[in-house]
Amino acid sequence: MNKQNVTVNDLVQAATKFRDDRDWRQFHNPKDLAISLSLEASELLENFQWKDSAKSMEENEENIYEELADVLIYSLMLSDVLDVDLNEIVLNKLEKNARKYPVEKARGTEKKYTEL
Amino acid sequence: MNKQNVTVNDLVQAATKFRDDRDWRQFHNPKDLAISLSLEASELLENFQWKDSAKSMEENEENIYEELADVLIYSLMLSDVLDVDLNEIVLNKLEKNARKYPVEKARGTEKKYTEL
Amino acid sequence: MNKQNVTVNDLVQAATKFRDDRDWRQFHNPKDLAISLSLEASELLENFQWKDSAKSMEENEENIYEELADVLIYSLMLSDVLDVDLNEIVLNKLEKNARKYPVEKARGTEKKYTEL
Amino acid sequence: MNKQNVTVNDLVQAATKFRDDRDWRQFHNPKDLAISLSLEASELLENFQWKDSAKSMEENEENIYEELADVLIYSLMLSDVLDVDLNEIVLNKLEKNARKYPVEKARGTEKKYTEL
Repeated sequence: MNKQNVTVNDLVQAATKFRDDRDWRQFHNPKDLAISLSLEASELLENFQWKDSAKSMEENEENIYEELADVLIYSLMLSDVLDVDLNEIVLNKLEKNARKYPVEKARGTEKKYTEL
Repeated sequence: MNKQNVTVNDLVQAATKFRDDRDWRQFHNPKDLAISLSLEASELLENFQWKDSAKSMEENEENIYEELADVLIYSLMLSDVLDVDLNEIVLNKLEKNARKYPVEKARGTEKKYTEL
Repeated sequence: MNKQNVTVNDLVQAATKFRDDRDWRQFHNPKDLAISLSLEASELLENFQWKDSAKSMEENEENIYEELADVLIYSLMLSDVLDVDLNEIVLNKLEKNARKYPVEKARGTEKKYTEL
Repeated sequence: MNKQNVTVNDLVQAATKFRDDRDWRQFHNPKDLAISLSLEASELLENFQWKDSAKSMEENEENIYEELADVLIYSLMLSDVLDVDLNEIVLNKLEKNARKYPVEKARGTEKKYTEL
């Protein structure tokens, strides 16, 4: 499979197959999946504890990739349980964010939209 | 665009275009992106605070989709900054998880691999 | 020492002594301490992943106490670095929360103040 | 009340009075309190997003104190629900951490105990 052509749906199917092979769908209520997603995001962040980005990447590159992957995998599984199309919600949210952060106001500043 | 055929790379490009239109790449070091990803995962989880899954979905469905989308968007932008292929790391991590959780041992239990 | 009489300042001193014995004050900038506090709160939460409160307590009681203690320890060390009086900020915040959640409106409901 | 003499138990009582005045004990199961603690730790961390410690303190000092206080308040309320003595678990955990990080090995390094 050419990786350039992998669709989001292909990944959702790979993640849910992993889940269903283990009969884990029964544990996957949205609340516990949201907890798990938050825990994986923290495990990703742990790689940067006490260090700047460069040193973190130097020491923990492989684990950073793996924890980012786990965040993705839980996101894919949560989208399946919610029965929502990830492509659609991502593209819709990018449009909403674009309205919250109009280019002319947001360009080059890290301020929150409430402070623009 | 047929949503069934949206590739992960299409989403990465949409997210990085949003970022670059605002000249935000300068702020996007991996450490701060990992912080942001963790914050968005918490905002998702906040929808489930004090409630079970059913009541959370009833009251906060739209916000749940939006916060899940934000988690995805930061994941896409982090993968761009790390210059790593999301498809590859997700598929590799699913394989690694499959070895950590062999079907015959993990089926139907929510135990961690360290307890199997 | 009678535990009933332990002051918050006693605990701050115990935590900062632990830190200074190891010459760790140099790493303790507020941003990395806030990251660490968030990571410890996640480790606490991990004890409740996929389980209700009763089963979590049954299986993980000791670890729950230890992770809660780690959250406290980082809070104590952060208050030292910020040079802020924990007693004062806690009592002030309780007063502010009391204004946000007036008894007559907030009694018996889990709603956020924005929804009262 | 002389703030130097405020005990941890005084703070627990202030936090649980706030809770009981609003009849909120019914919502305070340990799992949802652990979620809330994690959410407050994230709100604290949000003050440091995209910024170094100095700029964060300059722009968000008051909010940093308030979110740290909220972390404390939830810790106090969780200790009450768990019926555990915060002084005891903090002092015990400091002793355990001291064994994990012996002074002669841990001095001046930010490494985890697994790497010492």
